[in-house]
Amino acid sequence: MNAPSPAPSRERPGPETVDAVIRELTAQFGNRVVTSQAVREQHASTLTWVANQPPDAVVYAQSTEDVQAIVRVCAAHKMPVVAFGTGTSLEGHVNAPFGGISIDMSGMNKVLAVHAEDLDCVVQPGVTRKAVNEHLRDQGLFFPIDPGADASLGGMAATRASGTNAVRYGTMKDNVLSLTAVMPNGDIVRTSPRARKTSAGYDLTRLLVGSEGTFGIITELTLKLAGIPEAISAGVCPFPSIKAACDAVIVTIQSGLPVARIELLDEVQVAACNAYSKLTLPETPLLLVEFHGTDASVREQAERFGEIAAEFEGGPYEWATKAEDRTRLWQARHDVYWAAVGMRPGARVIATDVCVPISRLAECVDATKRDIVESGITAPIAGHVGDGNFHTSPLVMMDDPDEIARVTGFIERLVARAIAMEGTCTGEHGIGQKKMRFMELEHGPEALNLMRTLKRAIDPDNIMNPGKVVAV
Amino acid sequence: MNAPSPAPSRERPGPETVDAVIRELTAQFGNRVVTSQAVREQHASTLTWVANQPPDAVVYAQSTEDVQAIVRVCAAHKMPVVAFGTGTSLEGHVNAPFGGISIDMSGMNKVLAVHAEDLDCVVQPGVTRKAVNEHLRDQGLFFPIDPGADASLGGMAATRASGTNAVRYGTMKDNVLSLTAVMPNGDIVRTSPRARKTSAGYDLTRLLVGSEGTFGIITELTLKLAGIPEAISAGVCPFPSIKAACDAVIVTIQSGLPVARIELLDEVQVAACNAYSKLTLPETPLLLVEFHGTDASVREQAERFGEIAAEFEGGPYEWATKAEDRTRLWQARHDVYWAAVGMRPGARVIATDVCVPISRLAECVDATKRDIVESGITAPIAGHVGDGNFHTSPLVMMDDPDEIARVTGFIERLVARAIAMEGTCTGEHGIGQKKMRFMELEHGPEALNLMRTLKRAIDPDNIMNPGKVVAV
Repeated sequence: MNAPSPAPSRERPGPETVDAVIRELTAQFGNRVVTSQAVREQHASTLTWVANQPPDAVVYAQSTEDVQAIVRVCAAHKMPVVAFGTGTSLEGHVNAPFGGISIDMSGMNKVLAVHAEDLDCVVQPGVTRKAVNEHLRDQGLFFPIDPGADASLGGMAATRASGTNAVRYGTMKDNVLSLTAVMPNGDIVRTSPRARKTSAGYDLTRLLVGSEGTFGIITELTLKLAGIPEAISAGVCPFPSIKAACDAVIVTIQSGLPVARIELLDEVQVAACNAYSKLTLPETPLLLVEFHGTDASVREQAERFGEIAAEFEGGPYEWATKAEDRTRLWQARHDVYWAAVGMRPGARVIATDVCVPISRLAECVDATKRDIVESGITAPIAGHVGDGNFHTSPLVMMDDPDEIARVTGFIERLVARAIAMEGTCTGEHGIGQKKMRFMELEHGPEALNLMRTLKRAIDPDNIMNPGKVVAV
Repeated sequence: MNAPSPAPSRERPGPETVDAVIRELTAQFGNRVVTSQAVREQHASTLTWVANQPPDAVVYAQSTEDVQAIVRVCAAHKMPVVAFGTGTSLEGHVNAPFGGISIDMSGMNKVLAVHAEDLDCVVQPGVTRKAVNEHLRDQGLFFPIDPGADASLGGMAATRASGTNAVRYGTMKDNVLSLTAVMPNGDIVRTSPRARKTSAGYDLTRLLVGSEGTFGIITELTLKLAGIPEAISAGVCPFPSIKAACDAVIVTIQSGLPVARIELLDEVQVAACNAYSKLTLPETPLLLVEFHGTDASVREQAERFGEIAAEFEGGPYEWATKAEDRTRLWQARHDVYWAAVGMRPGARVIATDVCVPISRLAECVDATKRDIVESGITAPIAGHVGDGNFHTSPLVMMDDPDEIARVTGFIERLVARAIAMEGTCTGEHGIGQKKMRFMELEHGPEALNLMRTLKRAIDPDNIMNPGKVVAV
């Protein structure tokens, strides 16, 4: 914590080391160790414009003890270790810039326990959010965090994911009760007991949530659950401008309406969704809104929201309680990425993810829209606006250096704008590789130094997902 | 993180060091440095049976820069630094077992900003929860965490406090958006931007919340606020047994009733409260319950709760929406400590604070009540049972070694019982000095080693509140 010590150097292990590690792992795991080019590249998938940097090998883990054994072999050789869930991260989190071993967690896909009385469950990290909800449905329970992609719960915890429901149910930070993780020294750490709250020492759970695999590998999660609401109403509300929509969001949140989801699509994104999902939504800024509660309360809430929208010349707010209608609506929301892809065949979609205090939201989105126009780029906007979090999705032809430069400049300005408004470069996607350059601007040198101190102390040889979050 | 390095020794600084530090501090702070015995002892107040261990001097801080200057002087001399808020902690948190400087934060008592649109505010650490709520009331907002005592918000963050409202609003972990803190090297760290959520790197906010001053001194807090509910209903419901009351709590939580407070008093505590607060509550296990919402919804919720209580032979559930009646009821709840004191004049009240998964609550409370009887001690029970957290308050004559031994044995068994039920030794009071001995039992050696690793890395000279949370 004093003067930064010289960075523990991290180099790509030499070929003898790689051979030795693969030999030792193969002796233990047999054909669960895979070195084919295709599998290695698939495990460095990025879904964005980060270049693919494959690991040296992939090992398919089946238990906490497997992960411990793999980490021990790697630690002995100072070999990088990267955890892989479903590969839906957006910032190069699963890339292996220094090579190393990718641990594929997809085989660790069991729901180990459901404690319905305690509203919690215990899962392995490879369980996806859809799988856990499928498992829970008969018991009237659900896990509310919904980032869109059918991500693995281990990956969601590692990136502090959130999504459309966060305005009501919080993020992974709020919904993980406890974790089991394998640390770089091979220790298996359980971060907390299962009790609903505790003040017993340092918050190891939140130390690991959002650490993106740079401290340890999550091998078990205890998750908070919610009761499936008795009634759900959802609907669409058009607005004359982005500002009007954002102002309606502010008043909705301030007035204490317990909105479960409140999502903004700009007119560009609406057009893309209409085309991709075969919908006929009005091509103007829209809010997609959902309420959870009793029959009476969702009706009351929807009516009050309609009144608020009308104050800002929004509306009519048309809502439905039929499950099919809601599903269709949210499928369209979840498909914004693919809808954006569909706008411009051949283009790469770049995800951005700023989040600002809600009072600055209209101003930030407005300035960003102007910047999009002035930059001559195509970038639909969609956002979890109840939290002040919005995504622009610039579309880039990767063979057009000028367009790449314009998009890069746009992203730099977007992030600087959000940070100047007391916001963050990432509300939910995480830092990974591509946002590391914004860390000092956002946190300042002192906080960044503290983060480095943590990383060096926990992982002195820098074997855990090196080259992510903070440079050490 | 590898083999534990030899513990950085922590000794009481010699008299020359103490003199030098006090001289340097006096040169900077004049008569804000106080060394009188009375003031030093007051700053080591413990409210419990932990012996008073006064600091060498008390300095009254007025700004973050003051705290930074004090920490820099202390760091240069490896002098311990202990932050002091209101002295209402229960585990010897403000004691100075190695001497050192107590920084009194009570002068840092300004509300720096209220962002009503964002439902947050920025306060100095010496602001108390009642003071912030007084400040906010005109704006229809409140800070929901209520540990009973009118504690300072800095202290509440440092101990990860919660209290009666936590079942609805969460704990300090959930309600601190960002902190400013002075670290042992004198760095001023801001843990997070003010945006509602972020995935930008390690969760420094939650690293500091609950760290009990052992990592750094909190000098500013950004807090989440809630809207004052349109309507509040509160009431009392008697039950034939502790088990019946606990079972009613479980069904209430499971059925998704958004209860704002649900508190258990056993018949011993009720009798004490009746005597102390001049009430006429039925002397049987009681639940005190409160709902927040609209007029219609609190009525609906109260009625549903009454039906659930009746299923377990509880009731009648009598509730009121009048503010005076509610205030009287909750004042009685907040006075349980003083009511316990009143039961046995001259006795010390020892606070306990276990928390278990709610499914184990009835079993844990039942076994604990039996243990109280078998141990021949007096110990009323009150609890935040919606979270599975309950307090027994053994009354001890400090001149009776046999009674001290019986109470000590009872506490050991209580903690072991809670931990065996996947619970914790402390739901909200923190570890301080007296619960350090339970840390390994609760967390296991690997997690405890990780906590030590964090402490050593952040505070290598062990100047920040040494002798608390973890031994290094």
